[in-house]
Amino acid sequence: MTERNIQVEPIDRRAVEDQDIEIVERKGIGHPDSICDGIAEAVSSALSQTYLDRVGKVLHYNTDEAQLVAGSSNPRFGGGELVEPIYILIVGRATKEYEGTKIPTDTVALDAAREYLHENIPELDVGRDVIIDVKLGEGSGDLQDVFSEEGATVPMANDTSFGVGHAPLSETEQIVLNAERRLNGEFAADNPALGPDVKIMGKRERDTIDVTVAAAMVDKYVENREEYDAMVEAVRDYTHQVACEYTDREVNVYVNTADDDESIYLTTTGTSAEMGDDGSVGRGNRANGLITPNRSMSMEATSGKNPVNHIGKIYNLLSTEIAETVVAEVDGIRDMRVRLLSQIGRPIDEPHVADAHVVTEEGVELSDIEPEIVDIVDEELADVSSITKRAIDGDVTTF
Amino acid sequence: MTERNIQVEPIDRRAVEDQDIEIVERKGIGHPDSICDGIAEAVSSALSQTYLDRVGKVLHYNTDEAQLVAGSSNPRFGGGELVEPIYILIVGRATKEYEGTKIPTDTVALDAAREYLHENIPELDVGRDVIIDVKLGEGSGDLQDVFSEEGATVPMANDTSFGVGHAPLSETEQIVLNAERRLNGEFAADNPALGPDVKIMGKRERDTIDVTVAAAMVDKYVENREEYDAMVEAVRDYTHQVACEYTDREVNVYVNTADDDESIYLTTTGTSAEMGDDGSVGRGNRANGLITPNRSMSMEATSGKNPVNHIGKIYNLLSTEIAETVVAEVDGIRDMRVRLLSQIGRPIDEPHVADAHVVTEEGVELSDIEPEIVDIVDEELADVSSITKRAIDGDVTTF
Amino acid sequence: MTERNIQVEPIDRRAVEDQDIEIVERKGIGHPDSICDGIAEAVSSALSQTYLDRVGKVLHYNTDEAQLVAGSSNPRFGGGELVEPIYILIVGRATKEYEGTKIPTDTVALDAAREYLHENIPELDVGRDVIIDVKLGEGSGDLQDVFSEEGATVPMANDTSFGVGHAPLSETEQIVLNAERRLNGEFAADNPALGPDVKIMGKRERDTIDVTVAAAMVDKYVENREEYDAMVEAVRDYTHQVACEYTDREVNVYVNTADDDESIYLTTTGTSAEMGDDGSVGRGNRANGLITPNRSMSMEATSGKNPVNHIGKIYNLLSTEIAETVVAEVDGIRDMRVRLLSQIGRPIDEPHVADAHVVTEEGVELSDIEPEIVDIVDEELADVSSITKRAIDGDVTTF
Amino acid sequence: MTERNIQVEPIDRRAVEDQDIEIVERKGIGHPDSICDGIAEAVSSALSQTYLDRVGKVLHYNTDEAQLVAGSSNPRFGGGELVEPIYILIVGRATKEYEGTKIPTDTVALDAAREYLHENIPELDVGRDVIIDVKLGEGSGDLQDVFSEEGATVPMANDTSFGVGHAPLSETEQIVLNAERRLNGEFAADNPALGPDVKIMGKRERDTIDVTVAAAMVDKYVENREEYDAMVEAVRDYTHQVACEYTDREVNVYVNTADDDESIYLTTTGTSAEMGDDGSVGRGNRANGLITPNRSMSMEATSGKNPVNHIGKIYNLLSTEIAETVVAEVDGIRDMRVRLLSQIGRPIDEPHVADAHVVTEEGVELSDIEPEIVDIVDEELADVSSITKRAIDGDVTTF
Repeated sequence: MTERNIQVEPIDRRAVEDQDIEIVERKGIGHPDSICDGIAEAVSSALSQTYLDRVGKVLHYNTDEAQLVAGSSNPRFGGGELVEPIYILIVGRATKEYEGTKIPTDTVALDAAREYLHENIPELDVGRDVIIDVKLGEGSGDLQDVFSEEGATVPMANDTSFGVGHAPLSETEQIVLNAERRLNGEFAADNPALGPDVKIMGKRERDTIDVTVAAAMVDKYVENREEYDAMVEAVRDYTHQVACEYTDREVNVYVNTADDDESIYLTTTGTSAEMGDDGSVGRGNRANGLITPNRSMSMEATSGKNPVNHIGKIYNLLSTEIAETVVAEVDGIRDMRVRLLSQIGRPIDEPHVADAHVVTEEGVELSDIEPEIVDIVDEELADVSSITKRAIDGDVTTF
Repeated sequence: MTERNIQVEPIDRRAVEDQDIEIVERKGIGHPDSICDGIAEAVSSALSQTYLDRVGKVLHYNTDEAQLVAGSSNPRFGGGELVEPIYILIVGRATKEYEGTKIPTDTVALDAAREYLHENIPELDVGRDVIIDVKLGEGSGDLQDVFSEEGATVPMANDTSFGVGHAPLSETEQIVLNAERRLNGEFAADNPALGPDVKIMGKRERDTIDVTVAAAMVDKYVENREEYDAMVEAVRDYTHQVACEYTDREVNVYVNTADDDESIYLTTTGTSAEMGDDGSVGRGNRANGLITPNRSMSMEATSGKNPVNHIGKIYNLLSTEIAETVVAEVDGIRDMRVRLLSQIGRPIDEPHVADAHVVTEEGVELSDIEPEIVDIVDEELADVSSITKRAIDGDVTTF
Repeated sequence: MTERNIQVEPIDRRAVEDQDIEIVERKGIGHPDSICDGIAEAVSSALSQTYLDRVGKVLHYNTDEAQLVAGSSNPRFGGGELVEPIYILIVGRATKEYEGTKIPTDTVALDAAREYLHENIPELDVGRDVIIDVKLGEGSGDLQDVFSEEGATVPMANDTSFGVGHAPLSETEQIVLNAERRLNGEFAADNPALGPDVKIMGKRERDTIDVTVAAAMVDKYVENREEYDAMVEAVRDYTHQVACEYTDREVNVYVNTADDDESIYLTTTGTSAEMGDDGSVGRGNRANGLITPNRSMSMEATSGKNPVNHIGKIYNLLSTEIAETVVAEVDGIRDMRVRLLSQIGRPIDEPHVADAHVVTEEGVELSDIEPEIVDIVDEELADVSSITKRAIDGDVTTF
Repeated sequence: MTERNIQVEPIDRRAVEDQDIEIVERKGIGHPDSICDGIAEAVSSALSQTYLDRVGKVLHYNTDEAQLVAGSSNPRFGGGELVEPIYILIVGRATKEYEGTKIPTDTVALDAAREYLHENIPELDVGRDVIIDVKLGEGSGDLQDVFSEEGATVPMANDTSFGVGHAPLSETEQIVLNAERRLNGEFAADNPALGPDVKIMGKRERDTIDVTVAAAMVDKYVENREEYDAMVEAVRDYTHQVACEYTDREVNVYVNTADDDESIYLTTTGTSAEMGDDGSVGRGNRANGLITPNRSMSMEATSGKNPVNHIGKIYNLLSTEIAETVVAEVDGIRDMRVRLLSQIGRPIDEPHVADAHVVTEEGVELSDIEPEIVDIVDEELADVSSITKRAIDGDVTTF
């Protein structure tokens, strides 16, 4: 145990990789819940930057709520249209005036949301296909002079909260995470017919991994059923190839399994938000981009929270980062969970508990690597404000 | 009296030009009420065209309501910003499905409103400075196969309604109408500092005409108070010059009279909707573009109504057009009022009453010109469907 | 001409009673536009009283906008239901803080609107059948210490505005006004089947008056078509009887003329707002309760405006009151119009022009009664603040 | 393994009761997230019943989204007020017409939400203190004739989803759950000063349990700071006493620890939603009423989902019930986790996997009790439709 109350112990379960059944899910960036997460975080980053620009420090705000109400659409091969627009309500708290300076929180939020949608759901015509509304109230919270131009100081935790992170990702987790990212990356760049609403469920039973992909196709790039079927096949092949980069286990890939002769997953904008799927912040991926019922998860929504003083956000991002760093730098770890528990009134770099639970590789004694682990945890905690800085700059992923 | 029940009589008042006191007002295109009128009419025209394109005829709709909730702004010389966005709610009824074809009424409305704002209030960044929302319900009205690709037939009036129009415009009316149009036209083209929210009040007392202009200046084109004052002066000079083209009476022009050392009429977007002035349809200019308490006026909102079957809209536009045509083609008329009163169940080209009240010039006997007047009124009534056609094409002005 | 610039002249038209054609309309209290007017004025009165209670004077506010979006309903003999709720958005400006005291403007507005609906549209279940929303921004206007506990002083006009009033009402006007009031009063008390949305159109052609009534029936008090028809008949008889109290002319009454075998005017709540008729403030009755195209009308919405400093509201109410008082106290007047025109910067009891245009009875010389008229106008102007006081107390009708 | 693929295995971790650190949280019924959960579930139950009443079966709907935007308030000893109302938006999908019958989904939802608030947050004046709005779109889902008057049949799973439940509750879990329920039950009945927004965090470190209570006090029942402090003390004593019924460990109770001389947790309505805390569905308690990072949790929001066909809802409720039943009926179990994983296209009573992971008491062999466990799991699965039935009747708790 160090000054920072860092505990390293064996984990009280098998490595996830060794469990018989493993379930992993990721809602891609175009999923309605992810759209809300993405907007919430974009708004948060824009507000942080606006506060820094205008008053030299980040003021109290929290924009970790957004509600998406689905539209309805009329997709057609070659190009359809939205019939009823999507409605997105940005919700939260923000400081609107500081020492005589008015902060245009609402227009900043609208602008950030619009820009986020333009970049990430490009087929959505914001203003026609989607209405963005905003209700940001004044918060009741105290201001904190925490992150200012003069440099960061370490704030006190103002809540009892909890963050948890893991590393390394299991094979199934790597497959699910990377398949979505690469489908939405290089694959979509070459195949505009694939929309950003790609939802992937990975289920591993012992040594067989089933990967189920629900992929919204964009109608204007698909001329007929044959092209649609070909695109489904291309997604399957690509996903299978990606998966095999991460595992030697048997992999089965299923794409758009609900398709039948009459109904296929064709959309106009590439997101199911256009036809019946509502969404909101914090309902989808955890901070590491995955939903992993086999692991401890925090209920805390990470997206949209103020990265200066919201301990739940900081600890979820930091615990994940700690686990990743330890695993990258220390040999012999099969599975690792890092938990950070805050205590009200203590500096956030001194959590009440920071415990690292580890499954070592065969032949590795935990006691041999413990000092290394403790050092890294200690360093990462000391550098907690870098999480804040990167969140302000929009350089962390929160979902 | 003809088949069409056209009555021509002397008017029971002096010509407006001869009255001692005359008041005329025009809310320019950037005024919050006019913004609502303009959006309502743009939405109406877009819906009509969409119905024609999709199902070959104009279906039941009515979009003659829109509510604008003002924002708040922080104008500054050289360029300010909106702090709270303007909110515009498009309201009305529209048929959303016809024989299996879904009509995207809501997205059509949003698109039309956005385009209208881009063209008419160009400094408004739609989506950041203004939120456009829409609530179009299904109407209870019956469909009318009135205006279809196969050509127009004359519909039956489904309401007892009333339209009134006048010609020629008095000098004061011409000044008010043209000053706004030309300020928002050639003057603004040369002077981008002048925003579209130009409100003009003309008050004539016998032979003195006071023209009071409230002109929203756009901050990014005004560097300092001197430039602002110079622009006010330029508006005054230009308005005076325009006014003198329409009258030989004494003209006094007052611009932004509420300015003082601390407060001027500076805006970021060129409309007072950005800082506290709400608006709605039908609260501003009448169908001829003016508010004229010296004349009969209809309370009916013309903007946004269905031009196929809304008798109030058609008769307000038509009565104005009849009066203008008569005055253009028949010599000897000093003042003319045309009223059209519908009767439920009769074809709209056969109004219950069409009366033309006329003040002739000295030496002209009404009986001498009555046949000519009756002929023109008759022709115009027979051609009532051209009003509908032009309204669908967006070629009439309704406010 | 007096110090107050009061002018008395012959009117430049025939008495309305002598014109060949006269049209008069009244939208009853349950009409969607009237609902908006009523709510706007109720909110205004509640805000005024709240300001007086909390800070001792009426602060800046204006709530003269409200938008009603119609619902949809499923009326049935014996009792139907709303399917989609009505939506009402209260819009305006209000001062939310004064010298450290927060004013709960939004909850006051919601409460006033709810109470107004309970009293006036009792079959509406507020919260289930109708959603009331509110958007009151901070205004840009200056505060005025005009109407405070220490007593009223006369404020300066802050706008060039115009009010107009008439007296006496013509026979047709009396019929329309009183028929609606008494149908919604004693008749509805005895016949709950009659809902408050009673719209009356009076059309007089020389000596024949047609009164057309559109009366929303409340389904739960009507068991079948026979009862419905009987109620229509009862409304007709009652209206005819009321009409004959005000005229010796021929009167024809038509009720629910659009009824046919398949469609009748049956509602669940007694207002057409439940099924497709939208509404907003200032689109219906003028300040005297009527729409009278034969007379000069002001476009100004009276309902919801601040009665302390909004010159348009004050002058519309005052000009009507002046005309009524003059006609009540001075013999020999057939028709009278009073116009009040403000001048920016002058006290509102000293209008720029106060002109009374009069049609005298045969044998009465205007010059004989002019002094009496001037005296009354003068007194009424001197007592202008009583209009404000009664508006605050909710003791004026504005629509 | 049975026909139903029921697996019973040792759990791969220590019993939660034996872990060093345990964290448990419960957001009480008045917490903004719980308010949303409660409304969503009340709306769901009301819609199910309406469908059964009107068309004899439950149609497609999903109301598992609701967004609460906090108000602002001015609490004061003896009674304060809301300044800005809370705004709640009910979101989801619902079938609005079925074989010619219109279903009033929106008014049913509004009514259910209002009634729920009246019962559970009685100090909220719905309509004044809170605006309830609704946006229910038509869903894209197929109808399922699953739960009709003719009786239930077992539907097919239409998604790959996952439910997890546990039993028995650990001591800390029992304390947190029961303390909130009893504070909001018998304690609040005697002490109206305690509002329903009671948030409890339990943290056990080995044999010390810290219980942190954040309890919103209702201002009108608290006259001064002394009474407030006395109420805080009473909550502490009561909570301590409740806690000691469930454990012999050391218990420390902390109530409203953020209070200081200037700021206390005083509210007007008993919920922090009145002053800055937003909320939404699925962000708070899991289906068993707790947030338990030490245990597997499902991200799935249970509240508001259709209990007929939403496999995530059904399996979360059912897995919890199975675990509770097994533990109640089978001796020798210290900790048990039940997981149910659906497979698309198979009947929901035949999950792809139903695994029971068990920690037995010392001296108990899992193999001895396995048959009993399997039998109970089998029976419970066979009776899956009783979950649906009770959810429709509003007889399950989902948060």
